[in-house]
Amino acid sequence: MDIQNQLTRKEKALLESLTTRNGRKKSGCCLCEGARSVGELLLRAPELVLFIVTSQFDEELNLPNNIRKIEVSPKEFQQYAATVNSQGVLAVAKTPETKDGPVDGDFILAFDQINDPGNFGTMARTFRAIGGKELWITTGTVDPYCDKAIRAAMGAQFALNIRRFPDLPSLCQEAVKQGYINNFITDPHKGTCCFEEPLLFDKSVIIIGNEANGVTCFPEGTKSVHIPMPGEYESLNAAQAATVFLVEYVRRNVERNK
Amino acid sequence: MDIQNQLTRKEKALLESLTTRNGRKKSGCCLCEGARSVGELLLRAPELVLFIVTSQFDEELNLPNNIRKIEVSPKEFQQYAATVNSQGVLAVAKTPETKDGPVDGDFILAFDQINDPGNFGTMARTFRAIGGKELWITTGTVDPYCDKAIRAAMGAQFALNIRRFPDLPSLCQEAVKQGYINNFITDPHKGTCCFEEPLLFDKSVIIIGNEANGVTCFPEGTKSVHIPMPGEYESLNAAQAATVFLVEYVRRNVERNK
Repeated sequence: MDIQNQLTRKEKALLESLTTRNGRKKSGCCLCEGARSVGELLLRAPELVLFIVTSQFDEELNLPNNIRKIEVSPKEFQQYAATVNSQGVLAVAKTPETKDGPVDGDFILAFDQINDPGNFGTMARTFRAIGGKELWITTGTVDPYCDKAIRAAMGAQFALNIRRFPDLPSLCQEAVKQGYINNFITDPHKGTCCFEEPLLFDKSVIIIGNEANGVTCFPEGTKSVHIPMPGEYESLNAAQAATVFLVEYVRRNVERNK
Repeated sequence: MDIQNQLTRKEKALLESLTTRNGRKKSGCCLCEGARSVGELLLRAPELVLFIVTSQFDEELNLPNNIRKIEVSPKEFQQYAATVNSQGVLAVAKTPETKDGPVDGDFILAFDQINDPGNFGTMARTFRAIGGKELWITTGTVDPYCDKAIRAAMGAQFALNIRRFPDLPSLCQEAVKQGYINNFITDPHKGTCCFEEPLLFDKSVIIIGNEANGVTCFPEGTKSVHIPMPGEYESLNAAQAATVFLVEYVRRNVERNK
């Protein structure tokens, strides 16, 4: 039997370890499931891919020659997949390394202790969709490379540069050092209106706080910005609010280019 | 023992039936879990509430005198709650009746076979937050009053008038009959730009299609509208896209009132 055409015992053990944070940390790898996530990974960072596992998967993958693809039975596939809807394709990849150095782009998106992987992923996906690059996170934020966050983001992680900071003050300090001096904390009610704040994307940081508790603190120099809501209701959830702030960037560009 | 202070056998059976569609249909009731959802229900439609069940719940509920509140043990509570995070409070309520008759407001939100209760709820919550009233849905859309949709919407269902139609053409027909003649299908790429379409909220219907397949058809007179996305990426998910369209309504009002 050709050893190339089946998973080695080591690969199986690696696969099984990747749904735990410890397993990912030990191996420096992550699990990327589903056609769109794997597609984004292959497009953005093919050099990270260790191998691909498929089962009854018909779509074209655009697979470089040097990446091994192993076809397994549906039953075996289900052992490695974290969901029942992984569409018969998953990849094991090295976790991307953070690129330090100068920041590019009009603004940075920052998460302060976002702890739901679905929220993390949805926001990363929207940020990627509007052309964002720099996603900065504080300790207490969910692991960006856990399988659920990768699925929810459709692999946007592989197109972003994710930098980690122990806390919000140190994140803001680094931003200011890099010339990003207009730092905005998104608030349900307080501060300037997001549709009217002129500096919102002018070398700025847009900071999204924890789903239940908001930001951990208000570092010096940060200002609040909010979405005006007429319905006298609970504010939008974190992911919906982030979408509004991020798409406002697109709208202003459309406006400017008229 | 005071019978008022514990659940009757009938109430227990009702509670247990409400997590299934059949159970809800048979009783005409629904299950509303969590502090915010129950709060919205009590604020918007207290007349629908049959009874409240709590367990170690400390918050003020603003409960009318005629509504019975039964305190149970955490273990018993967990039998009735659909999630582990129901915060110790749930309500059993009559499902709201649709109000037929004239439509009020600048635009109607329509769902064509939205089948994820989380998406349904998130969109209903945003619609409620921007002050929307009329939510129209086609057959094939998830039950608006299933427990998961109510939780995701934080009870927004009780502040909306939800009308049901067998399909998208009959929904659009009724809208036109009511004077809502500018009907827009939200598309990932095609049509006019949502930030520039002048008739978007001018007696219109904003139609959100199924998460995977989009709308079931393009009824006569409907136009497409899209969110311009610079990232050359997968489009936003249904709930994120809907948020952009809905908050655009708020932005235009802010702009107009300057």
